[in-house]
Amino acid sequence: MGVAVRNMLTREEKKGQTRAALMDAALELVGKGENFASISLREVAKNAGVVPTSFYRHFRDMEELGLNIVDELGMLLRKILRAARQQEDYVTNLTRRSLVIYTQFVLEHRSHFYFLCQCRTGGTPALRSGIRHELRYFANELASDMRQFGSVERIDREDLEQICEVIVGLVADTTIDLLDLQASHTGFQEEYVAQLQKKLRLVWLGAQSWRSDRSA
Amino acid sequence: MGVAVRNMLTREEKKGQTRAALMDAALELVGKGENFASISLREVAKNAGVVPTSFYRHFRDMEELGLNIVDELGMLLRKILRAARQQEDYVTNLTRRSLVIYTQFVLEHRSHFYFLCQCRTGGTPALRSGIRHELRYFANELASDMRQFGSVERIDREDLEQICEVIVGLVADTTIDLLDLQASHTGFQEEYVAQLQKKLRLVWLGAQSWRSDRSA
Repeated sequence: MGVAVRNMLTREEKKGQTRAALMDAALELVGKGENFASISLREVAKNAGVVPTSFYRHFRDMEELGLNIVDELGMLLRKILRAARQQEDYVTNLTRRSLVIYTQFVLEHRSHFYFLCQCRTGGTPALRSGIRHELRYFANELASDMRQFGSVERIDREDLEQICEVIVGLVADTTIDLLDLQASHTGFQEEYVAQLQKKLRLVWLGAQSWRSDRSA
Repeated sequence: MGVAVRNMLTREEKKGQTRAALMDAALELVGKGENFASISLREVAKNAGVVPTSFYRHFRDMEELGLNIVDELGMLLRKILRAARQQEDYVTNLTRRSLVIYTQFVLEHRSHFYFLCQCRTGGTPALRSGIRHELRYFANELASDMRQFGSVERIDREDLEQICEVIVGLVADTTIDLLDLQASHTGFQEEYVAQLQKKLRLVWLGAQSWRSDRSA
């Protein structure tokens, strides 16, 4: 029985490996310039080195595989938030430092963020909804951090969350520029951070003038 | 010779009709939920009622067809701007009225705007660049209208154009919400306009506090 358990574990591990290989294979194709929507299950299986029928042992279809990539993306976003919060000056220097951390993560996980850019407004309804959910989580966390700033007391909870959604939306929406800039020239990261920081400063200035009691 | 000219024109007209039919066929598939990236040339030809080889008489590939849809999208955006400017209170009531006009156009041209949502950050580099170009044109026009307001004199030309890019980006980025809301319930249009107006008010408040000489 000891042997049986060990074999079971090994089989489970093996299953996990194939599952990860299928997701990596899809992401690799996305990173090479393919659109997730146009990648076939057959192509993914081939790229992962398994037969197409074995795909179905792990995912119902490409959308389910995509939803699992959304989960990975969610974990990445949580890591980014954790890394940003670990900065000593996180509260006083929120924007610039956090944007540098964000861009680092994007460049280290290009395929995941190409996937984000493709699917956030262009994916199937289920994929869009999954990504929206992850970004809203991120925005809510940001809002709770911002409440510590002290300069947002005229903004009610709902409005602050909407403001943070605008901020997170702006970052997500411009991520494709970062990925595109990368190919063109060095210094692109600083350029992107400076551009985005300017846009976020605009939103932040707006937030400082915002009064929830007058927003109706 | 008169007959020959007439026949030539007829052939040109016919060619134009097939061309339009191919673009409409692709847009129809997008409107039905397919992603432009995953639509095959063969599928488009079939949907347009022509043989695949005749596709190549009009477009080199699907990307070129897509770029022609981007041109149509550009014309739509110009129409929206013209319709907004024709409003008597365009200057005093820019936001709400213009957003209602925008949403009307979106709902009347759903396929074009699904295409926009799919390709703006998720299309091929050429498609993304084409769409970016059209949206930048729109932002620049908006900036020139805004200069008439009078309350933007502390904002230099470059910053005002960036602010308008943020505004246009926000509208484009949330368009998928409008298209998604449509399926869910009535009153969605007012709901979308109210939400987006709030977000734009935030940017506009920021613009009013913006001083270009302090933005460095």
